[in-house]
Amino acid sequence: MSFEYTLHKESNNTKARLGEFSTPHGVIETPIFMPVGTQATVKTMTPEELEELGAQIILSNTYHLYLRPGHELIAEAGGLHEFMNWDRPILTDSGGFQVFSLADMRDISEEGVEFQSHLDGSKHFITPEKATEIQMDLGADIIMSFDECPPYPAEKDYVKESLERTTRWAKRCKEAHTRDDQALFGIIQGGMHRDLREQSAKEIIDLDFPGYALGGLSVGEANELMYEVLDYAPDLLPKNKPRYLMGVGTPQDLFEGVIRGIDMFDCVFPTRIARNGAVFTSQGRITIRNATYKRQFTKLDPECDCYVCNNYTRAYIRHLIKRNEVLGIRLTTYHNLYFLCSLMTKIREAISKGRLLEYQEEFYKKYGLDL
Amino acid sequence: MSFEYTLHKESNNTKARLGEFSTPHGVIETPIFMPVGTQATVKTMTPEELEELGAQIILSNTYHLYLRPGHELIAEAGGLHEFMNWDRPILTDSGGFQVFSLADMRDISEEGVEFQSHLDGSKHFITPEKATEIQMDLGADIIMSFDECPPYPAEKDYVKESLERTTRWAKRCKEAHTRDDQALFGIIQGGMHRDLREQSAKEIIDLDFPGYALGGLSVGEANELMYEVLDYAPDLLPKNKPRYLMGVGTPQDLFEGVIRGIDMFDCVFPTRIARNGAVFTSQGRITIRNATYKRQFTKLDPECDCYVCNNYTRAYIRHLIKRNEVLGIRLTTYHNLYFLCSLMTKIREAISKGRLLEYQEEFYKKYGLDL
Repeated sequence: MSFEYTLHKESNNTKARLGEFSTPHGVIETPIFMPVGTQATVKTMTPEELEELGAQIILSNTYHLYLRPGHELIAEAGGLHEFMNWDRPILTDSGGFQVFSLADMRDISEEGVEFQSHLDGSKHFITPEKATEIQMDLGADIIMSFDECPPYPAEKDYVKESLERTTRWAKRCKEAHTRDDQALFGIIQGGMHRDLREQSAKEIIDLDFPGYALGGLSVGEANELMYEVLDYAPDLLPKNKPRYLMGVGTPQDLFEGVIRGIDMFDCVFPTRIARNGAVFTSQGRITIRNATYKRQFTKLDPECDCYVCNNYTRAYIRHLIKRNEVLGIRLTTYHNLYFLCSLMTKIREAISKGRLLEYQEEFYKKYGLDL
Repeated sequence: MSFEYTLHKESNNTKARLGEFSTPHGVIETPIFMPVGTQATVKTMTPEELEELGAQIILSNTYHLYLRPGHELIAEAGGLHEFMNWDRPILTDSGGFQVFSLADMRDISEEGVEFQSHLDGSKHFITPEKATEIQMDLGADIIMSFDECPPYPAEKDYVKESLERTTRWAKRCKEAHTRDDQALFGIIQGGMHRDLREQSAKEIIDLDFPGYALGGLSVGEANELMYEVLDYAPDLLPKNKPRYLMGVGTPQDLFEGVIRGIDMFDCVFPTRIARNGAVFTSQGRITIRNATYKRQFTKLDPECDCYVCNNYTRAYIRHLIKRNEVLGIRLTTYHNLYFLCSLMTKIREAISKGRLLEYQEEFYKKYGLDL
């Protein structure tokens, strides 16, 4: 169907790419940040607010929706878009990462993974075919192959064995996938080992997916180690397909990823810290609970023009957060998502104008990051 | 200043009144329901949403704001309207009710009340002058006299003693009040005793306030007993001033109050039950958590045209509420407040058309209430 990645521009002094990816629910501009709506809701936000703050696509989690309310119920509702009243693109993960990180007593075999729900201990068996079937029921625009995401650190032998199984699983996902209004992406594993990343990339690319993700990063390794992998891994991927770095989303990681050739990012980080009262500002992250902000009748971020910054003060938001008032976490969530979405807009503009490194330097300096 | 109650119409077969009360932040149409924003926020809602769902005035609680963030801080922010970004009218209570129901170890003397904060045990002394000063700092359009609200049941002797002190306190509030952009209302006490209500009304009306409230109702007595008091108490009040029944707000109580001549109501009920997943519908209250609603892909209320009913299904809202997702309680709160605000609009229309009792009968029948 209508899935097409268009590469508009390559940066001349970085590996950054400016592009577009078309889906049945609209075109997304890349590089892009995708807010996470784990349980068919980006926590605290309405769809209208997400649109207003600049979200072009959101991610939702197959593992959670499979357990509750169940993919059959969502299919009955007309799919995830209809269920949650969001008509822009959606990406669902395969559930693999959550099965390996949240579920109890998982038992991996060639066939699939048996695990106990982290909620009620009920037993489930997910195969690549099942993960694909669930995602077809959910009906996202972009869906992911069912992969194993090994923990970090892991024995190299195990990582190799795991990535080879992930390739076999990816093939099975592709065979099981029959909806032509969904793009099924492949996932490259291989841990922090260059030769294994190369092997995984080759195997997965041979299967020919409309997009590729780098999995198994941001799983506990040091930032430097992730950047080291990102120094070569995107180059293993074809230029004419979008490249998605899963689970990554601090301002710094977005810059570092884009510069190394990544097109898509997702992360719960901005929404999770928002619920603890931490907000991004052009001058760095601040924790609004702190007494410092008690009498500051100014914007969260002096340079921000979002709904929150145009209408509320640090003092008021601090009061709400301290009182555990829902409006408080609504406002911090809105602001943080706006911050990352508009950061990506500015990054795209900087690529377009050939000044990404200059923009990075300006941003880092103000934000308090070292280059 | 600009406080004026205009009586547009009196119902011919009930005591219902159609009117308007003008304040520095705009005119409110009466009878009216006022959503409660205890801590300078109507829980889960933005000011824009409150406007959209039809709130013309909100109530905020002096006791809570005095303790946190403090009235001085709110004065520094430019007052409550500025602090919370709400530019329509606000009413603050005096803190009396909360001091008597929430605080620990309260000690009542002629001078005032000493109590310990329910939050941290810190000691405070509130006098009528202090309560007025705090409310002047908060800067609401309508403020309330500091009264004692005796529990129910209470000894008649005590209720009499208490109402007489409340009169002396009302006088002191009036003397302490110096802002001409605020209307200070008097409160009638007297429990469930007709002679004491008459005594209190006479004493308080003698002090000449721009509006009068009935306090000490909906404090644990049976509904029938409250209606019994409402059968005569509003008649003790002047016709040319608004009459406010404090702390009352079920659909039935709104009808019964309006019919007996009440103009203003407030209650946490609609927002509190919303957070437990209970919603008003034209066919009665439903608890959306119930399994019945799991696969109902229909509006909360088939007859409702609010933002929530136009965009989300019972199945989705149930999913959100069951998952403790904030969006769930945002949607149920919005719907419940819309329901009560539009109920009041329809009640005003029915008074205007001389068919309030017919409308009450239609509503009760569908809602499942006995006349």
